[in-house]
Amino acid sequence: LRPTIKDVAKAVGLSTTTVSLVLNNKPNRTSPAKREAIFKAAKDLDYRPNRIAVSMVTKKTHTIGLILPDISNLYFSELAKVIEEECKAYGYTVLYGNTSDSVESDFEYLNIFIDSNVDAIIIILSASFNEADKTHFDNIIDNNNIPVVILDRSINDKNKKSVLLDQQLGGYLATNYLIHLGHTKIGCITGPQNVASANERLSGYMLALSEAGIPFDENLIIEEDFSVEGGARALPYLLGQSVTAVFASNDMMAIGVYRACSNFHLRIPHNLSVVGFDDIFLSEFIEPPLTTISQPIDKLAKEAVNQILLLLRGETADKEDVIFKPVLKVRGSAISAATSLKII
Amino acid sequence: LRPTIKDVAKAVGLSTTTVSLVLNNKPNRTSPAKREAIFKAAKDLDYRPNRIAVSMVTKKTHTIGLILPDISNLYFSELAKVIEEECKAYGYTVLYGNTSDSVESDFEYLNIFIDSNVDAIIIILSASFNEADKTHFDNIIDNNNIPVVILDRSINDKNKKSVLLDQQLGGYLATNYLIHLGHTKIGCITGPQNVASANERLSGYMLALSEAGIPFDENLIIEEDFSVEGGARALPYLLGQSVTAVFASNDMMAIGVYRACSNFHLRIPHNLSVVGFDDIFLSEFIEPPLTTISQPIDKLAKEAVNQILLLLRGETADKEDVIFKPVLKVRGSAISAATSLKII
Repeated sequence: LRPTIKDVAKAVGLSTTTVSLVLNNKPNRTSPAKREAIFKAAKDLDYRPNRIAVSMVTKKTHTIGLILPDISNLYFSELAKVIEEECKAYGYTVLYGNTSDSVESDFEYLNIFIDSNVDAIIIILSASFNEADKTHFDNIIDNNNIPVVILDRSINDKNKKSVLLDQQLGGYLATNYLIHLGHTKIGCITGPQNVASANERLSGYMLALSEAGIPFDENLIIEEDFSVEGGARALPYLLGQSVTAVFASNDMMAIGVYRACSNFHLRIPHNLSVVGFDDIFLSEFIEPPLTTISQPIDKLAKEAVNQILLLLRGETADKEDVIFKPVLKVRGSAISAATSLKII
Repeated sequence: LRPTIKDVAKAVGLSTTTVSLVLNNKPNRTSPAKREAIFKAAKDLDYRPNRIAVSMVTKKTHTIGLILPDISNLYFSELAKVIEEECKAYGYTVLYGNTSDSVESDFEYLNIFIDSNVDAIIIILSASFNEADKTHFDNIIDNNNIPVVILDRSINDKNKKSVLLDQQLGGYLATNYLIHLGHTKIGCITGPQNVASANERLSGYMLALSEAGIPFDENLIIEEDFSVEGGARALPYLLGQSVTAVFASNDMMAIGVYRACSNFHLRIPHNLSVVGFDDIFLSEFIEPPLTTISQPIDKLAKEAVNQILLLLRGETADKEDVIFKPVLKVRGSAISAATSLKII
């Protein structure tokens, strides 16, 4: 059985009150020898106070809940890693919840973390989170009065602090680059359209086309789920539409396009130009290295933690979104349309 | 403020006892109309019982704590994903703790999860966990009487159930393959030598050399930390030892070798043969695709969950380790020593 403060008191032959005062660093008149004996006994018995019980008094657990959609997506795991390092630097431990993009899991982890008395929550909402879930979300947060920062995926919640990327600009930069290489038949593998970030990336794609005077063709758009498998599934359809280039709305799907191209004995960039989005670390290791939109993962993660710390100190007034800008990182997966080889 | 059962009772004008009976599906004589009103009020108010409070009565939270060393290592994130899917299939939610390979974090998360009343814990111990930590570990687990399964990294704990891989066999298969390609100067980038799995992989390397009558040369061994950066750091040293092949003790370090080779304008496999360990999903996407030791991630993850379920049902008697066997997956990163190009 787990040792209690009574066991420590019994071991040293002192009252539980004395032991409690000493172990909690409260003012007391216990002699140094006795104090030492108490600490030794607590250590020998592996006694430690129950975190939840302590938190009911101190209202602090120094834990932060991090809810994210897919831990095996390198973009999120890299983001999570920086968040964790940053939290640690400020004395907070991170508890993770992985939702597999299910809104039920968003709420499940919110409830679990709140019941576990985490001090604050950083959440990257699941793809299936929609407008109708917003009230429920706000209610849970407000009822429990827990600091929360929404990261990466916006839900246009003016009552909550969000740390976001200018997704539309990213989609624009990717597409604009392909247009400047002379491509006009540019396929787009979008993420789930109920995810705001996916939708904004697509709107960036459309904006670039429109600026260049290239008519928008909805047949060149295919919606997938941000996974490697999704990217691989999308390619045959786009090849059927005779595209010469593909903008994949994230790098995991771009890698899926690589996999499918390899199955069809197509070479990137000679037969098909590809641009991704996220700049996960492996994008520079694949062959050819992936040209992609680079997100400032470090800045996003640190700002999310910074906003949480401000909320915890009660220092934030405004709920203005913090928005970072992405950049295009040119590597080897896209070439001029003029030098591309016709697939058929 | 978070709504309580009193708020629900007030909203419907009934006693808290009646409301509690209805919401907890206990026998009661409440009319269907009133029951419906109670459920509606609970929903409207966003009332839900506190998970911790409920668990103090039921002793069940249907959550499982998963402690792992590095969520951004694809081997672990792939393992975690299968564990989570498997847990979900049995009605359990997974809470994650990422230790960054620090033994302090192992214990911190153990304590946090125990205090959060998780039903069981699956742990992949940190690299810094050593023999001296074992007693402390056993004490925490035994004092709290919590089911635990040790996964992937053995600590030779005969009091705990472990689900492991035959790491030595993996190291043997990788090295033996390079020997059969005619390599005799085979460098080895090992993981941290206090991690049993890293040590066993190295012993497999030594076994293969010894079987082939190749003298063991400790100058060909370099210890690193299982990270991409670690693999990249190790390469210049091994090149200085004139190796023609490298066995990297995990794929992340093998990818580091790829990165460093690219910096030195060396081509794999022409200038250097490389074999990894883990078979993470990206190993087939890098150029050349990585020849590596494939771990049965699915089987390992499912068996860990299976063992947890057995422990939860009180059905396990023995503490015998479950050990899976790895296989060599030949791709394109190693060639015959005879056809290799001399580096200098």
